[in-house]
Amino acid sequence: MAALPDRAARIALSCVVDAGDPSLAALVAEVGASEAWARVIDSALGEPAARRAAQFDHRQVEILSRHYRVRFVVPGDEEWPAGLDDLRFVAPIQRRAGVPIGLWLRGPRHLGDLSGRAVAIVGSRAATAYGIEAATDLATDLAAGGWTVVSGAAHGIDAAAHRAAVAAGGATLAVLANGVDIAYPKGNATLLSAIAQDHLIVSELPPGQSPSRIRFLARNRIIAAAAVGTVVVEAAHRSGARNTASWTVECGRPLMAVPGPVYSAMSAGPHQLVRDGRASLVTCAAEVLELVSALGSNVAVEQRGPDRPTDGLDEQRLSVFEALPARAFATVEDVSRRSGHPVPTVLAQLAALERAGLAEVEERGWRTSRDGSASTTGRGGQAHG
Amino acid sequence: MAALPDRAARIALSCVVDAGDPSLAALVAEVGASEAWARVIDSALGEPAARRAAQFDHRQVEILSRHYRVRFVVPGDEEWPAGLDDLRFVAPIQRRAGVPIGLWLRGPRHLGDLSGRAVAIVGSRAATAYGIEAATDLATDLAAGGWTVVSGAAHGIDAAAHRAAVAAGGATLAVLANGVDIAYPKGNATLLSAIAQDHLIVSELPPGQSPSRIRFLARNRIIAAAAVGTVVVEAAHRSGARNTASWTVECGRPLMAVPGPVYSAMSAGPHQLVRDGRASLVTCAAEVLELVSALGSNVAVEQRGPDRPTDGLDEQRLSVFEALPARAFATVEDVSRRSGHPVPTVLAQLAALERAGLAEVEERGWRTSRDGSASTTGRGGQAHG
Repeated sequence: MAALPDRAARIALSCVVDAGDPSLAALVAEVGASEAWARVIDSALGEPAARRAAQFDHRQVEILSRHYRVRFVVPGDEEWPAGLDDLRFVAPIQRRAGVPIGLWLRGPRHLGDLSGRAVAIVGSRAATAYGIEAATDLATDLAAGGWTVVSGAAHGIDAAAHRAAVAAGGATLAVLANGVDIAYPKGNATLLSAIAQDHLIVSELPPGQSPSRIRFLARNRIIAAAAVGTVVVEAAHRSGARNTASWTVECGRPLMAVPGPVYSAMSAGPHQLVRDGRASLVTCAAEVLELVSALGSNVAVEQRGPDRPTDGLDEQRLSVFEALPARAFATVEDVSRRSGHPVPTVLAQLAALERAGLAEVEERGWRTSRDGSASTTGRGGQAHG
Repeated sequence: MAALPDRAARIALSCVVDAGDPSLAALVAEVGASEAWARVIDSALGEPAARRAAQFDHRQVEILSRHYRVRFVVPGDEEWPAGLDDLRFVAPIQRRAGVPIGLWLRGPRHLGDLSGRAVAIVGSRAATAYGIEAATDLATDLAAGGWTVVSGAAHGIDAAAHRAAVAAGGATLAVLANGVDIAYPKGNATLLSAIAQDHLIVSELPPGQSPSRIRFLARNRIIAAAAVGTVVVEAAHRSGARNTASWTVECGRPLMAVPGPVYSAMSAGPHQLVRDGRASLVTCAAEVLELVSALGSNVAVEQRGPDRPTDGLDEQRLSVFEALPARAFATVEDVSRRSGHPVPTVLAQLAALERAGLAEVEERGWRTSRDGSASTTGRGGQAHG
């Protein structure tokens, strides 16, 4: 069988391996998508995936994609959101992990633009009237301030946040645990169709796929990574929103929680997150922006691209950049030693430098990018799957 | 004029100098109460105080005290609460400060016992139904668990906390900004009379005195210091409860705040305290006890008195004790150097050692107590003023 090109291999992989399989993420990171596809056929990820791969028909995807005006974006595409690459460094939560091998998109907005200045608002399906009001007010004010509201299109808090952003004339991004062509839950069909019409729906899963518990857990990491920070509005002690909260903390993004009456079971989750020191208490959009606006504008600066490659780098990032060799390759430990920063700091700064096209990584290690635009070299613009 | 004995001098001083005057606290700490009284007569604290001192008639106090069954306790009395001595190390807030020179007491309970295992519950006069319910539930559960509920007998949160403690058959301590014989506010007269009957009312001010703004501010430091920790249930952004909160933090005691709806102005104060990192968010008595119970039992251990003087000291306190000379005197800096602990730690540990009768302080510095009971030596039991 002839090797599939990178993009086609990613599409094929997304159709035969379940979302967020950390073995797939590791395999693609190691050998690239084309080789990963060949190995999946050779049972590298088990017999069931190999059987699905053998039966995979590319024409099916094309038909679905055209019919639903769906596109597929991959890391390195101009539309790919830089924030999602942070998932490389994130430890698996409940067996899900890794940078998505690609994302299915439906809707007219630009994913990279939306994600650069975005706050996730998540919470319980069984929200109270108080929670709905709080989510609505937060989303309205954030959307009016030019921030994308990211959520999961579930009943309750999620739907209230999306609706408020739409009503405020802002932008919203719905991240689904099923195909972007499927209206789930059915009660939110009108809302999802409005989002598909004027905003953006995203999923790691190909068209036609239904949600499952494991897909929800994998989806939550994309909500956390696609936003600059996450607000938990209402959540019971055990709640999916707490899974998104964990991803947010793992991604190194600010986690925020809205307080409520101590007698409300739906506020027990947010209160616990504050008590554990994991979330900051927030009561309004201004307090959310205090925590995320610096991050949002940093991302924005990187996306605009500086006049000189290193313009606009802060002192720490510049010192990591300057510790990189131009021709040889350096390990993260080398860079840590040369720059004087600890390894986690170096990892985070290298990721940012790579996103800015200033550093590149191979199996041998890290070095400065040779043409200052490594992150887009040889990958072309976005194409429709 | 013949010199007044210490207790009589303190009574006289409490009648002619306003509560919490930091100059008086400093003067008494420096020269003792008898000499301070002589100097106040000589205008050391200004002409108005000198005039009041010249006119002061001891018989008046005796008549009032007998009539209202009021007693006066001073530092070193068996009933004196050890916690109040921490006010020595506390910086003035709004021109009030210092260890009270004495306290007027009304009611059958033992102040030292109540204070050793006490939580303050404070909040707004204009409380909401939600706040009243939260204060009631907290006070009920703390009182049922054997903890004294300390508050200021104001309308709203304070009254709800006292009432719940009384109803639960627990103990409550009302700290007033007026004479213990005066029912203020009038609406709480029945409650205050129940507290006087079966619990305890405390004030720095002599019988007959009315409250004032400055007296409320001074009173709040006694609420904070008499309890092991303080819970703010509801408070507007600007509120007296926030003054008590500041005293609590200054005294090094845990400050706690109850969250509420983000739309309630009465929850804005607690939310701000949590956001500022000054208060821990608490939603029930169990969470309060998590934060204070260790402290409460430490106090209890000290009050019971160990078999050997240094039994029951933790490692840090023991190392400070061991850094003290037995015959010479050491400065706090000396002890810091010898023990390896920073000055604030040493100060706190020395205060605890002094309360436990293991250390004593003079103008020349600190040393170990010569008979293991320095804190009560030569001071006798409590007497009624």
